[in-house]
Amino acid sequence: MKYKNIVFIAKSIDGFIAGKNGELDWLHSIPNPEGNDMGYLSLMEEIDAIIMGRTTYEMVLGFDGSWPYIKHVFVLSNALKEIPEALNGKVTILKGAEAEILKAVHELGYYKLYIDGGRVVQDFLKADLIDELRITTMPILLGGGFPLFSELPTSSEFAHIKTEVFLGQAVQSHYAKKK
Amino acid sequence: MKYKNIVFIAKSIDGFIAGKNGELDWLHSIPNPEGNDMGYLSLMEEIDAIIMGRTTYEMVLGFDGSWPYIKHVFVLSNALKEIPEALNGKVTILKGAEAEILKAVHELGYYKLYIDGGRVVQDFLKADLIDELRITTMPILLGGGFPLFSELPTSSEFAHIKTEVFLGQAVQSHYAKKK
Repeated sequence: MKYKNIVFIAKSIDGFIAGKNGELDWLHSIPNPEGNDMGYLSLMEEIDAIIMGRTTYEMVLGFDGSWPYIKHVFVLSNALKEIPEALNGKVTILKGAEAEILKAVHELGYYKLYIDGGRVVQDFLKADLIDELRITTMPILLGGGFPLFSELPTSSEFAHIKTEVFLGQAVQSHYAKKK
Repeated sequence: MKYKNIVFIAKSIDGFIAGKNGELDWLHSIPNPEGNDMGYLSLMEEIDAIIMGRTTYEMVLGFDGSWPYIKHVFVLSNALKEIPEALNGKVTILKGAEAEILKAVHELGYYKLYIDGGRVVQDFLKADLIDELRITTMPILLGGGFPLFSELPTSSEFAHIKTEVFLGQAVQSHYAKKK
């Protein structure tokens, strides 16, 4: 498949990607002495670019250290006007409907895309534009927070591709949308 | 462990146990020519009794064929007053708070319990009375319906016990509550 939109994200057993107060610490609660990346680097090699929302972008900007992405990042935002000089050529701000955004990104030569960020994933799912789900379930009930999934206009069948358990605790399942 | 409350339930990728109009057909959408029971019979052997809500009870009563349970069933309901004569000695109606219900059931000599039904599972989780989760994820986004999980007063850590993929498509993970 030339074009592919992939979601790669971690959730709690009860389907939250962040806790009631935005907590993300539970994502790192499993002892991981050898720094198992749970498929992240392999995804990075596989994709051409990343599409994320402003919240995710600003969270990553706020991290200590250098810009972590080796692939081009498209930030979806109506409000953002400019990016730090150091990110010139690495980050592009886009706005518009999901289908328009994809068209623009494809025309720039980026075909395999990692779709990231809570709202952006929900919007792409609503627009029926997700081809692959790679979901890692962490062994916790958060009890509330920001949900991975939201209401969809219709149901949507997927095929289970594979499931792998990382560090004995994190269950990652890959699904491909049935065409 | 002498006492144990186990949830054994199937959900969609997006966490629903029934569709927007109560649909359950998606639970049987995976070809299953040899009738793989996905751990159900082994659970039935393991438990002493089943606790379910009135909705689940009445749904099962409405099925064609004979009463399917080989273990005693406790139905939680304020409204139900009597049971069909044929179910005498097989079904008991109980009401009250979850902890009281457990006390009553334990006093009758039933210790290992299968907690079933959407609302009952949510109520037992809210009361922090679930020891094990055995959740089977079917490869579909329902997009809406009755959610498996609801808001909880606090987060709750579990340990991943095992994950098994049935029929190549249904991913079943077992979790035990951390004490």
